[in-house]
Amino acid sequence: MSDLLARPMVELARLMGEGEIKARALAEEAIAHHDRLGKPLMAYSQWAPDHARRCADAADAAFAIGARAGSLQGIPTSIKDLFAHSAFPTYAGSPKRLPPKFEQDGPVIANLRRQLATVTGKTHMVEFAFGGTGHNAHYGAPRNPWDAKEHRSPGGSSSGAGVSLCEGSALLAFGSDTAASVRLPASFTGNAGLKFTKDRWSSDGIVTLSHTFDTPGILARRMEDAAFSFAALDPQLGDGFDFLSRVPRGIDGIRIGVADSFFWDGCENGIAEAAKFAIDQLGRAGAIVKQAPLPEAQEAYAVFCEGGVSAIELRAFLDHELADWIATIDPVNAPPVKAAGAVPARDYLLRLWRLKAAAKAARARFEDVDVIACPTVQVTPPVMTPPTPETFWATNRATVHNLVPGNFLVLCAATLPIGLDRLGMPVGLQLIAKGGNDERMVAIACAAERVLGTPRERLGVPPMCQ
Amino acid sequence: MSDLLARPMVELARLMGEGEIKARALAEEAIAHHDRLGKPLMAYSQWAPDHARRCADAADAAFAIGARAGSLQGIPTSIKDLFAHSAFPTYAGSPKRLPPKFEQDGPVIANLRRQLATVTGKTHMVEFAFGGTGHNAHYGAPRNPWDAKEHRSPGGSSSGAGVSLCEGSALLAFGSDTAASVRLPASFTGNAGLKFTKDRWSSDGIVTLSHTFDTPGILARRMEDAAFSFAALDPQLGDGFDFLSRVPRGIDGIRIGVADSFFWDGCENGIAEAAKFAIDQLGRAGAIVKQAPLPEAQEAYAVFCEGGVSAIELRAFLDHELADWIATIDPVNAPPVKAAGAVPARDYLLRLWRLKAAAKAARARFEDVDVIACPTVQVTPPVMTPPTPETFWATNRATVHNLVPGNFLVLCAATLPIGLDRLGMPVGLQLIAKGGNDERMVAIACAAERVLGTPRERLGVPPMCQ
Repeated sequence: MSDLLARPMVELARLMGEGEIKARALAEEAIAHHDRLGKPLMAYSQWAPDHARRCADAADAAFAIGARAGSLQGIPTSIKDLFAHSAFPTYAGSPKRLPPKFEQDGPVIANLRRQLATVTGKTHMVEFAFGGTGHNAHYGAPRNPWDAKEHRSPGGSSSGAGVSLCEGSALLAFGSDTAASVRLPASFTGNAGLKFTKDRWSSDGIVTLSHTFDTPGILARRMEDAAFSFAALDPQLGDGFDFLSRVPRGIDGIRIGVADSFFWDGCENGIAEAAKFAIDQLGRAGAIVKQAPLPEAQEAYAVFCEGGVSAIELRAFLDHELADWIATIDPVNAPPVKAAGAVPARDYLLRLWRLKAAAKAARARFEDVDVIACPTVQVTPPVMTPPTPETFWATNRATVHNLVPGNFLVLCAATLPIGLDRLGMPVGLQLIAKGGNDERMVAIACAAERVLGTPRERLGVPPMCQ
Repeated sequence: MSDLLARPMVELARLMGEGEIKARALAEEAIAHHDRLGKPLMAYSQWAPDHARRCADAADAAFAIGARAGSLQGIPTSIKDLFAHSAFPTYAGSPKRLPPKFEQDGPVIANLRRQLATVTGKTHMVEFAFGGTGHNAHYGAPRNPWDAKEHRSPGGSSSGAGVSLCEGSALLAFGSDTAASVRLPASFTGNAGLKFTKDRWSSDGIVTLSHTFDTPGILARRMEDAAFSFAALDPQLGDGFDFLSRVPRGIDGIRIGVADSFFWDGCENGIAEAAKFAIDQLGRAGAIVKQAPLPEAQEAYAVFCEGGVSAIELRAFLDHELADWIATIDPVNAPPVKAAGAVPARDYLLRLWRLKAAAKAARARFEDVDVIACPTVQVTPPVMTPPTPETFWATNRATVHNLVPGNFLVLCAATLPIGLDRLGMPVGLQLIAKGGNDERMVAIACAAERVLGTPRERLGVPPMCQ
């Protein structure tokens, strides 16, 4: 089998633009990869090879007349089933198809389609994106391809997103991130992930979990691909080629803050050591490494552990739009969603105000640093065992520990695969930046990857994908 | 006594700029008016003649060196005690002074002070702005100067704002409008009032009632003065002279929609007839008058009558910032504020979503009209009698009936005094415009006043101020 898809996205995009390769060839390769690996990995809830071929042919027809609809033309892309796409039903991880209004493209998917990307299908997810391990009582969870023996968590709630990249059926995967849901699956599956500042990209056309903190995000096999895709889709940029050409080659003079103990103390299985090693490498390559406390992260996490706001906002949303879906909700989600119906508005608003005050204070922490670095996740992807609500939420709290602050403090963040832990599972380095500094954060993450080497170079290939 | 203050604000501003009159002379006249009428009318909770003189002297000193700090330099201005002003304590209508953070100027007051306006003091208000008649169990309510016999409502919650204009101690009065609180006192006291689109002006530095709907606003003795002040203070404009020079002389071709029966059916004492007469006059002067239904107003009012969001947001705010103030809260406000503590977040969010959907639909109602016109208030200012919570809230619902939609549907609105009802009390004409069209709305309201004549010409002078 050829290995076109192993090349950087920018190169593939360029070669397609020059007529050297066909979008259809990429699509066929993606389909072949899925045919080989799709069944055990279960990335997709709606795998759509025919749709992908039609997309690729449209991209090729446009290339043939010299038309460039966008940087992502012909790039195989998977979409979390939380996003509306008018060619697909939307289930949002639930057992029943959602009403038609949830199948109307929002701005992000409209932009992707306008660029003539090759959409390969919709990926599995946690029901209504509420939970981080990937558990879904209705459909089961995708496999994490880094452990061939045990079924380990692929991360959630965008549980199929990272897996679709690992199996090679997509070069770009859409996720959404309300408390972790892009960065967590990216880190667990050894992929790059970007969570943008709230409202940098529209959340319209994405089934809401928490309207206060939902934000679309993207995963890719390497940060350079993520950066290219970000710039291609970002309303303020709009061109992947131009953006990559402006990313600094080195990391010289970039101020990297090392996060405080909140982000390190719970790390297991050599995760802290791997992250520190990567930061040291960046320091040796010219980055200015210094300590950077972010005490507001504790307040954010405390609000999360007290119940946060997602369950409340999800419950109100379901009551408002999808009342029939409450009866069938995943058993692990039923207790918090039920309890959320009784939380007083007063408590809800108090939580939001505590977070607002913390977010304001957190902004000042970025005066001396460009990014704050920490392990993306403190724990090894857990083995998927049938959960009770209690065990599920305990595990969930551990997995999202380092990620919730990014949402609750209105920051933006990238995760970069930097190695394997002692169990052979991927470790991510999270780079957190001030809200609104998305472009700078992505450029730094991309420059860091150029120093550290690609995920493939550092981590190798997932055992189940060899 | 001279009658400088009877002249249009723009003229006074020009004459001061030309050295023809002194800011100090305006201040002394304002103080003399207050000395004569202040006691029975009770507009101010903090009357500040010395501060006003110092402001005027600073304005004159600046004029003397040819410095124009802003269009409002030397203009006597009263401030609702919900606004922080660092030279005054803030009580927000409560019996206890608020903590220091509520006495730090927000952007609106900072702007006013930067322009070297003459601040005459802080006006009475309903406790925490929660209520529309002006009732305040701690301080009593200002008198409505249009009835010398009975103590009628001056409108609220900015209960002293309109009265300060009537007595002649201020040419500009700051209020805030969450459900009615600028337009209601303006209409009841025969003054012009402007409620801007939410977030057109910052609400920072204003004690919050409902962070979702609070907006600062202004009252003036005539719409032209309000327009001058609006443009002077508006961050997008910044110059009152320039704006007034651009207001059309006539009303030719302006499309005025006549609101549907929701806005008319409950009108008493000839209020509907007065409003219709004014609309007819505008039509005869060249305005295009047509029917303009706004059915979303009913949904907005229904949400208000079900409990709205103000009580919930106020309760959460008090718990968060002013917990000690709950024990002393006005007896008419105690029941809703107590009950609000138990409203589930789910119900609160459902109300917000219902309003959001209604607001979206309402925007389309302005495709064919520039403004929608209706009586500002359907009822005559009620006689102030000691209320029970039940009688109070029943009266409140009647007074704010035509005003709540402006806030809940994220619109902007002006009220223009257009006559007297059968009891001799002022009638206002409300002109409602699409959210964001503040500048156009103010210009139309100003043009309408040029057609209809000034409030003084149409209404005369309040009996208590003669």
